[in-house]
Amino acid sequence: MFFGKKKWDPRGKHCYVTGGSAGLGLGLAVLLAKRGAHVSIVARNQERLDKAMLELEAARQSPDQIIKAYSYSVDQAKEAEAALEAVCGAHGGRSPDALFLCAGKSRPGFFVEQTEESMQMCMQETYWAQAWSALAASKRMVRDGVKGKIVFVASVLGYFSIVGYSPYSPGKFAIRGLAEALQSEFVLYDIGIHICFPGTILSPGYVEENKVKPKITLKIEESDTGLNPEVIAGHLLRGRSLTVYINLILTAVAGVEKGQFHVTYDFIGNVFRASTRGSSPGNNSLLDQVYSMIGAIALPIWRKDVDKQVRAHADEHHQHLASQGLLVSSGASK
Amino acid sequence: MFFGKKKWDPRGKHCYVTGGSAGLGLGLAVLLAKRGAHVSIVARNQERLDKAMLELEAARQSPDQIIKAYSYSVDQAKEAEAALEAVCGAHGGRSPDALFLCAGKSRPGFFVEQTEESMQMCMQETYWAQAWSALAASKRMVRDGVKGKIVFVASVLGYFSIVGYSPYSPGKFAIRGLAEALQSEFVLYDIGIHICFPGTILSPGYVEENKVKPKITLKIEESDTGLNPEVIAGHLLRGRSLTVYINLILTAVAGVEKGQFHVTYDFIGNVFRASTRGSSPGNNSLLDQVYSMIGAIALPIWRKDVDKQVRAHADEHHQHLASQGLLVSSGASK
Repeated sequence: MFFGKKKWDPRGKHCYVTGGSAGLGLGLAVLLAKRGAHVSIVARNQERLDKAMLELEAARQSPDQIIKAYSYSVDQAKEAEAALEAVCGAHGGRSPDALFLCAGKSRPGFFVEQTEESMQMCMQETYWAQAWSALAASKRMVRDGVKGKIVFVASVLGYFSIVGYSPYSPGKFAIRGLAEALQSEFVLYDIGIHICFPGTILSPGYVEENKVKPKITLKIEESDTGLNPEVIAGHLLRGRSLTVYINLILTAVAGVEKGQFHVTYDFIGNVFRASTRGSSPGNNSLLDQVYSMIGAIALPIWRKDVDKQVRAHADEHHQHLASQGLLVSSGASK
Repeated sequence: MFFGKKKWDPRGKHCYVTGGSAGLGLGLAVLLAKRGAHVSIVARNQERLDKAMLELEAARQSPDQIIKAYSYSVDQAKEAEAALEAVCGAHGGRSPDALFLCAGKSRPGFFVEQTEESMQMCMQETYWAQAWSALAASKRMVRDGVKGKIVFVASVLGYFSIVGYSPYSPGKFAIRGLAEALQSEFVLYDIGIHICFPGTILSPGYVEENKVKPKITLKIEESDTGLNPEVIAGHLLRGRSLTVYINLILTAVAGVEKGQFHVTYDFIGNVFRASTRGSSPGNNSLLDQVYSMIGAIALPIWRKDVDKQVRAHADEHHQHLASQGLLVSSGASK
């Protein structure tokens, strides 16, 4: 840690970015291209991929960089495998040096309003969208003897959860569970595992997510981030929002360069990281202890306030459930 | 907390136990019957259910207790729903008062040896085996206005993970993610959420699990629990093992009675609980702080030792992979 461990450098490396046509994925892909990496992005929408390619080409540092885009749905195992196969084709069949698994989506809602389909879809859009690529790439890295990197993207909602996130948090916690196992197991192969825990990402996905988010969840988050969702939607990727956004991307790459296992982005993220670290390798043992002590005092207070807000919302919520036909007519649940 | 909050009492309550024909589930069902609860158990195997019914009948305290067994595979959404429907039939269609979600299985292995099928099967046997029952029962409890309890069963491997558990930990972490969201959300309904984090459960499932467990994982666990797996298999549910086992069951029920959100079983469990608690409601703020401080010192040391053991296993592991045809012939990966 102190004896000049060489920082990871993306220059000349083949970096594979899923969800690379928008949001955090595109931001990372552009930054990696600027740092001289070969960049392959994959995403569903061809039109968005074409637009992203213009940005990536503009970020290119040398004509030798191989920069390509591919259209696949990586939340399906077979497609994730096919995407990786295609991506490797441009590099003589060799595994990428680093995976940045940014594909994913959030679809919040009340648990009692979920269905088999919605729950499974959410697990697919959170956990499987990253696990399938990690599985296919791990096999290839190990086979080819590539001492590479796999970077998962969870969320602060992989550290804790609140009302409205029952379809989302399980998948983000699951990503942490996978990363924790692999961080131990891949010592066998000298493959580095990293996992990022960003807070709100001001991306097109966030605007979509807020359209279906329960009112009580929006209210709790409003006081949390200090950003009114309508304001965020309006100012998306402009002004202050852009600064926040660029900061997220720089932090992710810096965390990976420094070899951090858990990459967090701000004070809140650091407090939750330190307060839930258990046996996960830390970033700075002294500072982590300070964050953990702050968490021990502040988080129970914050949590009590959230519970209070939820309780105050109970009457309105029961009216909502009644209007959806989810209560017995006697109103016994009040 | 200190002002005589009434302890939850299973007497006269309808308790629904999945995985209730063996292991922790059966142990809990027997204990609940002894405490005067109506008990419904569900499991796959009819023969095991019949045997379990003999134990449950022997534990009955009064002829009025409704004690029944049902055969369903609750890791499928439709079956979990049908099981609950059947169970409620014996209680005038009313939702159970408490769910104990003990159905589940562990199938460890190396990540690079997993397939789409094995990964999905593991998620089904861990996360979905509990989530589907929780979903069906939540809808019913909310509809009927039952201020009940839902008790999830994770594992200490829902707090951390090591080599060999990449198919298992994601599902156990996911259960925690769901429980964390619901613990906040169900303040709306006065429904209590609990989640247990047992260590090794000396059940028939554990013997099966050890048959496919990687050697390196067995080795790490050997020094951890002080129990040699062969010894455990031999002494299963006898002598010392039985004491450990009964202790697990008593702790689970005591934790639920006391209203603990995270129920842990021993010193190690308490250290991990306190060291990963974040904003989860704690059990005892002073003691949790002590456990957390012990964790801050001991867990990084333990973790370094585990990493060392994994690293020492690398050569043997690469020979194993080569024998499975999972390395390129050049041996580039050494």
